Amino acid sequence: MTPAVTTVAFDADDTLWHSEDGFHEITARYAELIVARAPSATLGGVIELLDWTERANLAHFGYGVKSFTLSMIETAAAILPDGVPSSLVRDIVALGKDLLSRPVDLIDGVAEVVAQLANDFRLLLITKGDLLHQERKIHESGLAPLFEELEIVSEKDEATYARILREHRVSPESFVMVGNSVKSDVLPVLAIGGRAVHIPYALTWGHEHAVPDCEVPTLASIRDLPAWLLRHG
Amino acid sequence: MTPAVTTVAFDADDTLWHSEDGFHEITARYAELIVARAPSATLGGVIELLDWTERANLAHFGYGVKSFTLSMIETAAAILPDGVPSSLVRDIVALGKDLLSRPVDLIDGVAEVVAQLANDFRLLLITKGDLLHQERKIHESGLAPLFEELEIVSEKDEATYARILREHRVSPESFVMVGNSVKSDVLPVLAIGGRAVHIPYALTWGHEHAVPDCEVPTLASIRDLPAWLLRHG
Repeated sequence: MTPAVTTVAFDADDTLWHSEDGFHEITARYAELIVARAPSATLGGVIELLDWTERANLAHFGYGVKSFTLSMIETAAAILPDGVPSSLVRDIVALGKDLLSRPVDLIDGVAEVVAQLANDFRLLLITKGDLLHQERKIHESGLAPLFEELEIVSEKDEATYARILREHRVSPESFVMVGNSVKSDVLPVLAIGGRAVHIPYALTWGHEHAVPDCEVPTLASIRDLPAWLLRHG
Repeated sequence: MTPAVTTVAFDADDTLWHSEDGFHEITARYAELIVARAPSATLGGVIELLDWTERANLAHFGYGVKSFTLSMIETAAAILPDGVPSSLVRDIVALGKDLLSRPVDLIDGVAEVVAQLANDFRLLLITKGDLLHQERKIHESGLAPLFEELEIVSEKDEATYARILREHRVSPESFVMVGNSVKSDVLPVLAIGGRAVHIPYALTWGHEHAVPDCEVPTLASIRDLPAWLLRHG
């Protein structure tokens, strides 16, 4: 018999609150700013080069809005041969600050489900990104008191999950991770013997795409999670 | 009688390894790049405006090299009326990546003293800055196994220290914080009833300047810390 689940961990961006849609909107506004100054460039071409720059910068800058903002500036310099007008630099930095200061917008069902599960499970929040930004969102969300611990990490890989489980003295069999990314929230947890539930978000950043080689429990909404835990936890 | 010290926590940048000297060097190289393109600007003027921009951006971007790099770019846009040449954008981003990829350079005495203290105390590392960058430095330093926990935080204030002490179940009276910043490593720890030792670094970033209204134990070198703990711990 499988041991009972004691600990449920949640991803944050695009699992508890909307995030990727903000990046998409800012990316579209950015591409328009660039194309307005480089008529030979296309919106799609700008977005593709920005995506390439972001991936190339991940190893240096990691995840999050600051890294994204630096990539927007680097991409502008690559596209505009005569340099980046000062007003455009200011506009790009303002786009980054806009993303950082957006109010937290919880995904439908999150507030109720997390509050309900906190009665029966130990809850952890495991997220990557800018430290300051993630902390701010967690506190603004109003959900912080429901979580025993907030883990903001630089990469969600097997070693990170193993460390978190060790620190919280929870066995992989008693642990369920819930998130929107197969790559970051599901596969590394399965690899260390834990369980994971995939709740897709409407948009997934290309870098997070992954195809599992096994069947992954997938829910359409976090509202289905309590019933899943009753059946499988 | 004061309870015995059980837990010694260290700041990282400019306490365990050199950091501020790298920022100073990069700032000087940056100012030269700008002045070469804006002859009416002075090195001192550029550095002053960069410092002002950094402080203004702290609330948005937090601490660390990415925030610093964004401030360098914003400052360049403010100084250069005709825009920032693409090659200069690349040079500034390269300065940021240079800072992020520098090998960790331990301060004299750190390796021996930390290894020695790990035999007698529980050691914590409490640092702020870019998550990914701090993690990399901690792991490169070779000191990670000597610390029970690495706490990378967005701000070192009373609430942060109180949370860390609570999580590690250590009373303020049994806790000593060691660091180079009176503002971040000493005053908030004293305010919650803990003890702190100040080990000044040759350079202190302006933002970290603070004048204590009480006498703070100050050591010239981390080499003096074991003897201080014997006398006061």
